Amino acid sequence: MSRLMMISSDCHAGLPPERYREYLDPEFREAFDQALPIQVANTREAEKMFLVQEINEEWRRGRDAELSGAWDHDERIKVLDGDGIAGEVIFPDGITEMNSPPFGASLGLPARGVDPKLQWAGARAHNRWLAELCQMAPERRCGVALVLALYDVDEAVAEVRWAKANGLRSIMIPVMWGEYPAYHHPRYTPLWNVCEELDMPIHFHSGPAEQDTYFGTWPPNEEDGTLVGGMGIYVSEVAFFVSRPLTFLIWGGVFERHPNLKVAVTEGTAVWVPEFLSLLDHRYGAHRGSEKLGDYRSHLSLKPSEYFARNIRIGTNLKIAEIEQRHEIGVGTMMWGSDYPHPEGSWPETSERLDENFKGVPIEDIRAIVGGNAAEFYGFDTEKLAPLVDQIGPEEDRFRA
Amino acid sequence: MSRLMMISSDCHAGLPPERYREYLDPEFREAFDQALPIQVANTREAEKMFLVQEINEEWRRGRDAELSGAWDHDERIKVLDGDGIAGEVIFPDGITEMNSPPFGASLGLPARGVDPKLQWAGARAHNRWLAELCQMAPERRCGVALVLALYDVDEAVAEVRWAKANGLRSIMIPVMWGEYPAYHHPRYTPLWNVCEELDMPIHFHSGPAEQDTYFGTWPPNEEDGTLVGGMGIYVSEVAFFVSRPLTFLIWGGVFERHPNLKVAVTEGTAVWVPEFLSLLDHRYGAHRGSEKLGDYRSHLSLKPSEYFARNIRIGTNLKIAEIEQRHEIGVGTMMWGSDYPHPEGSWPETSERLDENFKGVPIEDIRAIVGGNAAEFYGFDTEKLAPLVDQIGPEEDRFRA
Repeated sequence: MSRLMMISSDCHAGLPPERYREYLDPEFREAFDQALPIQVANTREAEKMFLVQEINEEWRRGRDAELSGAWDHDERIKVLDGDGIAGEVIFPDGITEMNSPPFGASLGLPARGVDPKLQWAGARAHNRWLAELCQMAPERRCGVALVLALYDVDEAVAEVRWAKANGLRSIMIPVMWGEYPAYHHPRYTPLWNVCEELDMPIHFHSGPAEQDTYFGTWPPNEEDGTLVGGMGIYVSEVAFFVSRPLTFLIWGGVFERHPNLKVAVTEGTAVWVPEFLSLLDHRYGAHRGSEKLGDYRSHLSLKPSEYFARNIRIGTNLKIAEIEQRHEIGVGTMMWGSDYPHPEGSWPETSERLDENFKGVPIEDIRAIVGGNAAEFYGFDTEKLAPLVDQIGPEEDRFRA
Repeated sequence: MSRLMMISSDCHAGLPPERYREYLDPEFREAFDQALPIQVANTREAEKMFLVQEINEEWRRGRDAELSGAWDHDERIKVLDGDGIAGEVIFPDGITEMNSPPFGASLGLPARGVDPKLQWAGARAHNRWLAELCQMAPERRCGVALVLALYDVDEAVAEVRWAKANGLRSIMIPVMWGEYPAYHHPRYTPLWNVCEELDMPIHFHSGPAEQDTYFGTWPPNEEDGTLVGGMGIYVSEVAFFVSRPLTFLIWGGVFERHPNLKVAVTEGTAVWVPEFLSLLDHRYGAHRGSEKLGDYRSHLSLKPSEYFARNIRIGTNLKIAEIEQRHEIGVGTMMWGSDYPHPEGSWPETSERLDENFKGVPIEDIRAIVGGNAAEFYGFDTEKLAPLVDQIGPEEDRFRA
């Protein structure tokens, strides 16, 4: 009886905030002690501001043990086994907003207004702990190192080398560059070089957008206090911002010069992909009216959609609409993710969700999307995973029509 | 024999730069004399930078008379008659980049780094001249007043009243708000009020995007000198930025509170509309995983796509792809434009382009898209235009299958 190899391209892990202390370089522990109560208070404040405290508490109630898999090895193994997941890619921020690394070195990086030195200290503390977690089950865990690419690029390059040497197998860099140069800038070339050399995929993970514009600054001034619509704007724009670096990398010729560079966009949905590719390919093709803009194409030997298919993958908690669009998005491009332990993901109902979403889809496509693509992209050792898959993987027969 | 009423929702007009002097308030003429040679030199520099000087010169060669319709009443009438166009909506920047109003008060407004007082002076000079041009053929010309909405909102409101009183029938406001509050902010309420009261449609016209990010600052520093890909990024993002204000207006409840407010997005293509509406409606619908974001919907009594259909129109030089998508975009939403006198528009081949693009389309849809929608939106007096249409309009028979 054949079973499905499932690899979640989007999971999260993080220590309870106070436990990051021991992973920090000693010189930053005093600042940590001062910042910790503020970080905890801000998290609670944000929950209140968006009126979601009760919703979050309800979702978490009775799940203390399983949610502690956000940092506990044994519990995490149990949870993933129960969900039928053999391998996973591990981002920061375990239980939503409650397990963020210190000094804003989280999914939302870079943290504006925080000294880059402190952000780096927080990122390194998380990377050290994550390396330990991954080493406890290296064949199952692909850890994502936090790399603050915007500041000193040599420092970023050194962290990539540290990550590789310590068993972390990919990195994430900031989605938003703020006042720093965007990702078509040649200053980032050493970073692309080292990621290509060491086969370290680069992630952009959804979350950051222009929050200050949407919600106003905090605390609100008299005028901003009456701002409405911020959250609707946020959820409407967040996928634009997480996919935006691709536009810069493609047109900047980064994939032209680095044919083996791997980039993944995670948790930003995949529904935007067909329109995105159609727009970029249209702009790449010569057409009437574009002549007045000069030659902006000849440095690229491939069409944007060809770089996309070769170099880029999309990690997302797939919805039915995306699975129906799989041929336009690219069957080889999509990598399913459970988003454990976040409430918007499929855990703890992954099995039911698979049945719902993949009804009528050919088994080869399911294999690729829920595990095969990620195995290849991240270099999971599928032979080593096979005995585990035979125990915990969902039976393939249930997907046959 | 029935003829088609054509109204171009996107035309441009502007004086040769030196002739704006007399329309300026006298106190700004000294600054104008200093700025003029710089403005002219910058225009030439930009043409060289993007290697398009020859292309532009070639396109303009032999067309001096017809291009002078950018500012000359008689010539403009001849050109539009020749193109079969009975009515038009008139934006600034006549011959591309060569007829911009003073002090950066152009399609690219706001001009960063220019004193808002000077930008207002430039905008008012253009508005005064444009009012004269429109008064020479008021039934055919809907002038677009430049309104610098980001600075003092009361000043913006006063300019809307001046424009209405002087025969201008719509306004345009900046696409990009920079460091100012975005358009969901309550500070703009007086502007929405006056535009609703006076039935003045508000435009966002394509052009602005994050140019400094794409191209680097000018002159380039050593690093920026090797930036590539800027123009590809620009053409890939410019439609996002021109449609972006809609996201803020819709979620901000502006159309909920101002049910008669009219907004048009011009020359940003229409291909993005179906995906845009599908995304906003999806975000508006309650769905699993969005609970943790709280209630961000209940202040809107309609779906985003319903506000869109009621309050928003798209002015664009339609391509075949857009006409094929007309039911997803909305047949009642699309307003064709010739973009005269810009080289990317349909002039001087409007007739051929119509034949190409509208082959096989039902005549009622053609009527709506090339004129009917704009007539209603801008309040053109179709009875007054009828005799002209009978002379110059394309014969409807040629579109019948």
